[in-house]
Amino acid sequence: MSTRTGKQTVVLSNPPVVIGGAAIVGKKEGDGPLARYFDQIIDDEYFGEKTFEKAESRLLRDTLAKTLEKCGKSAQDIDFIISGDLQNQCTAASYAFRDVQVSFIGIYGACSTMAESLALGAMLIDGGAAEMTACMTSSHFCSAERQFRYPLEFGSQRTPTSQWTVTGAGCILLGKQGNGPRITHVTCGAIIDMGIKDANNMGGAMAPAACDTILRHLQDTGRSLDYYDLVLTGDLGSFGRSILTRLLKDNGVDPEGRYEDCGCMIFDLERQDVVCGGSGCGCSATVLSAYILELMNQKKLNRVLLVATGALHSPTWIQQGESIPCIAHAVSLENIPE
Amino acid sequence: MSTRTGKQTVVLSNPPVVIGGAAIVGKKEGDGPLARYFDQIIDDEYFGEKTFEKAESRLLRDTLAKTLEKCGKSAQDIDFIISGDLQNQCTAASYAFRDVQVSFIGIYGACSTMAESLALGAMLIDGGAAEMTACMTSSHFCSAERQFRYPLEFGSQRTPTSQWTVTGAGCILLGKQGNGPRITHVTCGAIIDMGIKDANNMGGAMAPAACDTILRHLQDTGRSLDYYDLVLTGDLGSFGRSILTRLLKDNGVDPEGRYEDCGCMIFDLERQDVVCGGSGCGCSATVLSAYILELMNQKKLNRVLLVATGALHSPTWIQQGESIPCIAHAVSLENIPE
Repeated sequence: MSTRTGKQTVVLSNPPVVIGGAAIVGKKEGDGPLARYFDQIIDDEYFGEKTFEKAESRLLRDTLAKTLEKCGKSAQDIDFIISGDLQNQCTAASYAFRDVQVSFIGIYGACSTMAESLALGAMLIDGGAAEMTACMTSSHFCSAERQFRYPLEFGSQRTPTSQWTVTGAGCILLGKQGNGPRITHVTCGAIIDMGIKDANNMGGAMAPAACDTILRHLQDTGRSLDYYDLVLTGDLGSFGRSILTRLLKDNGVDPEGRYEDCGCMIFDLERQDVVCGGSGCGCSATVLSAYILELMNQKKLNRVLLVATGALHSPTWIQQGESIPCIAHAVSLENIPE
Repeated sequence: MSTRTGKQTVVLSNPPVVIGGAAIVGKKEGDGPLARYFDQIIDDEYFGEKTFEKAESRLLRDTLAKTLEKCGKSAQDIDFIISGDLQNQCTAASYAFRDVQVSFIGIYGACSTMAESLALGAMLIDGGAAEMTACMTSSHFCSAERQFRYPLEFGSQRTPTSQWTVTGAGCILLGKQGNGPRITHVTCGAIIDMGIKDANNMGGAMAPAACDTILRHLQDTGRSLDYYDLVLTGDLGSFGRSILTRLLKDNGVDPEGRYEDCGCMIFDLERQDVVCGGSGCGCSATVLSAYILELMNQKKLNRVLLVATGALHSPTWIQQGESIPCIAHAVSLENIPE
């Protein structure tokens, strides 16, 4: 049974456990600093399929299979698959799970989707509606480019604030019981729109949403930021990260030394020509499901606040001159001593 | 605290209550048989905005305001807004709630979204994560046509199995306590794809998903279909309704006399030139939030199984030759004697 604390935070009384996770990524991600943590690195952007969209869908399907295999579970152990992606109408997920006879909850939170999925999964388990949930998201550089920007063939120039959509899928299997890190609190964000209209500056657009959710989480829980070993934003990239750092400082919270961003971790920003770093809901999903989970299982990290951010625009609304509404959901992952 | 029964059904131990609801619809819907139940009928497809997409977003925003006004509540009483729509990247909802400082959970289930929203809201309330949720969806004929099919200016012919996307938004305010009908069970569907590739035959594509979820619900709960006064599909339309009727009979369940479809109710199929009837997630949302809720409050209906169905395709995947994955979520609404 969950309880609420403060305005936006839910306390999970029997904190659901991260039973395990897996991540499959693209070639470029497999050339980055976190390569050895990923379960599989695919050879090309098509992954044996005929289109980028189908390749992304297969990333999700295979990542679920890999997670179940690692955890010694079968699909029939799962009560809900909670998943979404960046494709038009969330189709990577819908097509991925056609052959898995499990209740499916489709979600959309742009790049915040992984935290949204974990938040929902944790609340459903703690509330008794599920024993086990698969929380997953994916993104794919090529499907996202033609969905949100231009076809790859157009060869558009990248602006100084742009980011590189991660090709990859991550899955976390959450359960009622087990030995892994637990989700103790979730803070689901409200929509924040500070008027930024440049769809190539998502880090700048999303940083205020991350700030709002972090401050709300701290206020609701009575915690200070140094309660956490790591505050991990989803994909603000280097530009958004610097804005969030300043916004937090302006609000009397100093994140130095305990703040990182998945978008800055998954690529080598000096070497890999990704401008401000990674983005896409596959970014936080893969970094969390592979690298962070490993560090938590090794007790190198014991308290992590995942704050995945999403830019909730579409090409249509941007073409109509609108700004970018953003959101950030926070999930508190903690190793709790037995 | 919720419990599970059978493979896909959740029993809500303290069934959340429908505190109230509202629906705002377009001119064509306001010319249909249910006109007098709707809270507002807008004059034109633009609703004072410059684009169809913005008009749809305003439908959601105004429907929330109307619901809160009718229920004597304010936005700050709501713990979660759970909402989605058919626009590319669910933008009607994301843009609608930019100025409402409430935790937002974005969902996507195509035309099944209203049941998905109610299912999630009910589980979150019963599990203690929320005291009150606003469950909402919208669709808009003009934004859906250019999103899924062709621009209106193209003047495409409608095929014999086509449906007419409802312009409208519906909102149900769910709470822990109150006097309205209660949500006692939810059965979240698995994805079903029977290989239909015609995006103008969504009723036919979705009917097997509705059948699967209804049979699953009956099996999980041990109920027979005549437990319900009304089984209400979201928007199969007349063609899909006839297929579902046959599929249920083939499985030994006779729905005659207690089965209706929102898509066949919201328009006069003889007079209004909508071919097989209404569709879009605004269809079940407005029929439920206005007409069905009124009948339940008057005790003319006491046990309703809402089964909203969704076609989870996108234009991209259809152009790539794929079939249509479908889903149906069921929510059991019951007047429970004091």
